[in-house]
Amino acid sequence: MPVRPIRWKSGLLDGCVELIDQTLLPGKLVWLECRDAETMFEAIQVLRVRGAPAIGVAAAMGLVLAVRNAPENENGFFDALSKARDYLASSRPTAVNLFWALDRMVARAKSLKGRPVSVIKQTLFDEALTIQREDANMCRSIGGFGAVLVPQSATILTHCNAGSLATAEYGTALAVVYTAVEQGKKIQVYADETRPLLQGARLTAWELQQAGVPVTVLCDNAAGWLMQTKKIDLVIVGADRIVANGDTANKIGTYSLAVLAWRHNVPFYVAAPSSTFDLSLADGSAIPIEMRSGDEIGRPFASRVVPDGVPCYNPAFDVTPAELIRGIVTERGVISPVCRERIREVLAPSQTN
Amino acid sequence: MPVRPIRWKSGLLDGCVELIDQTLLPGKLVWLECRDAETMFEAIQVLRVRGAPAIGVAAAMGLVLAVRNAPENENGFFDALSKARDYLASSRPTAVNLFWALDRMVARAKSLKGRPVSVIKQTLFDEALTIQREDANMCRSIGGFGAVLVPQSATILTHCNAGSLATAEYGTALAVVYTAVEQGKKIQVYADETRPLLQGARLTAWELQQAGVPVTVLCDNAAGWLMQTKKIDLVIVGADRIVANGDTANKIGTYSLAVLAWRHNVPFYVAAPSSTFDLSLADGSAIPIEMRSGDEIGRPFASRVVPDGVPCYNPAFDVTPAELIRGIVTERGVISPVCRERIREVLAPSQTN
Repeated sequence: MPVRPIRWKSGLLDGCVELIDQTLLPGKLVWLECRDAETMFEAIQVLRVRGAPAIGVAAAMGLVLAVRNAPENENGFFDALSKARDYLASSRPTAVNLFWALDRMVARAKSLKGRPVSVIKQTLFDEALTIQREDANMCRSIGGFGAVLVPQSATILTHCNAGSLATAEYGTALAVVYTAVEQGKKIQVYADETRPLLQGARLTAWELQQAGVPVTVLCDNAAGWLMQTKKIDLVIVGADRIVANGDTANKIGTYSLAVLAWRHNVPFYVAAPSSTFDLSLADGSAIPIEMRSGDEIGRPFASRVVPDGVPCYNPAFDVTPAELIRGIVTERGVISPVCRERIREVLAPSQTN
Repeated sequence: MPVRPIRWKSGLLDGCVELIDQTLLPGKLVWLECRDAETMFEAIQVLRVRGAPAIGVAAAMGLVLAVRNAPENENGFFDALSKARDYLASSRPTAVNLFWALDRMVARAKSLKGRPVSVIKQTLFDEALTIQREDANMCRSIGGFGAVLVPQSATILTHCNAGSLATAEYGTALAVVYTAVEQGKKIQVYADETRPLLQGARLTAWELQQAGVPVTVLCDNAAGWLMQTKKIDLVIVGADRIVANGDTANKIGTYSLAVLAWRHNVPFYVAAPSSTFDLSLADGSAIPIEMRSGDEIGRPFASRVVPDGVPCYNPAFDVTPAELIRGIVTERGVISPVCRERIREVLAPSQTN
């Protein structure tokens, strides 16, 4: 069973949210208890919980934590709700699912104006659990549709983490993997480590290992060679935004992977909920790309970046076929075009036999 | 001026070898003094000096250190020479240039049998300096031939370190860069960080920075997106082995880079001395690929992996064009082929406007 990264434990008033602190993976599995909005705010802000759908669930539950002890008079309650909404919304200013979940919760509360506040509180609690359940169902649907594309025995390459850790459960790209496994298919996964933040090495490898799915980590630059030398049946990745013509924005490196898959005639799939589509943009050229701090590249990682027990695919070299090389510059001149005859010509007379 | 990573300081008997301890780059520039064969052995073994040509030079100089105080009688001297040769040869068992340089030195000594041992010692000293000079000249030649391929103003992408740090000076791929700069061309370089051991981030970025050539580091997986969004005029890399038809083994990731260059119609060049060619192999499928420890991927890096002051290109996302995507799996079904019409069909009715 894939992990569920976030859960409400016990009832509305006495309960709390427990979530996996993803910043400590894969070194330690720590369930963080959130009993108030402040703890949840911090968890979202510093990426203890990450992945658009998981953030939505966390925010909805955070709002419940924020108002469960709010005044029982309507004005006092809605005032507290509004403040809590704005507070939680500021935890990650660009996360669309965060706003979506908070606004859905507030709208639900407003639809109940006039009812006792205790009823509104209970309804918000139910609504947060509904958001979680709906996300889980959506992931299951994606898994079901995607598993049809997976052969009975398959080696699958993925990038970043579009797994259960990023959603209520199951994930998007990894939902396809989990569902295929449940159907009795024989699946093994190669996970790009996904520089700079190593979500593939740290998170995808960890959750697949937890679920008992064989996984091997590789450096991103080895994906081409992997396709060239081993049978990769398909590539599947998540998406951050998909525009009207299907151009897809996703974690840096996805594009390189797609080109490499295309070169090797390996099917390249994207798995994403319909909420990921932005039909207002005609094609990918209109998608703004976030440029992040260079320190993510230049500064160190965590001390252990792949879970213990997960193998790494680590060829030191690869072979580039001559047809891809425009010229070989030697101290005797440039070999171009690159072919046997021209090589011998330039190297002559010392190496002609 | 590009750095020279290894130099003999002062005379045969009172001098020593100084080499840059590359394991400490880019954090610290430390010149290691080698006054005996043991220090040189350790330096080669733990990669304080690396790169095939540089190892050859280091080994030759190490042999001089080993025998400069050897007995002055011929038998005693050749006995010491033979032992020192075997000792140094065991520092890195698969390094072809190491054996080549040591055997050239021994052959030179043997050719002088009957002459006074002091003369043989002086000749070996000269021979080591000759090996260094020849390597430098070879790199200069490669630079000269390669610079012709470089436009007056050019943005060049490279992988790993095929620079002065790997040779007597100038390098192979980077010799082309240095020569173009000397010719007054306006050059900027993008350096793949080159996982897992980060030779691009640590070494290529450092030596280009030292030489005053503008350089930006990127994660390997960003190379495709870089080519898609910025003008890369050419890619140039080194080589470990080139076979009869031009298929080229080089640092893992080179192949991916070549495919990406081909997709974007960016010329992809290899720069290498003729000694890199192995005409005994017909094509690349016969080249054995070293598989290295997974710990290189899973265990941590040095604490600072890009020199201070070198910018990093760090887009968080990229855009994969629809034509490269075989299908998009959503909770409403699979969109395939990926085109506007099919997207609207699957997403309907909720997002059709």
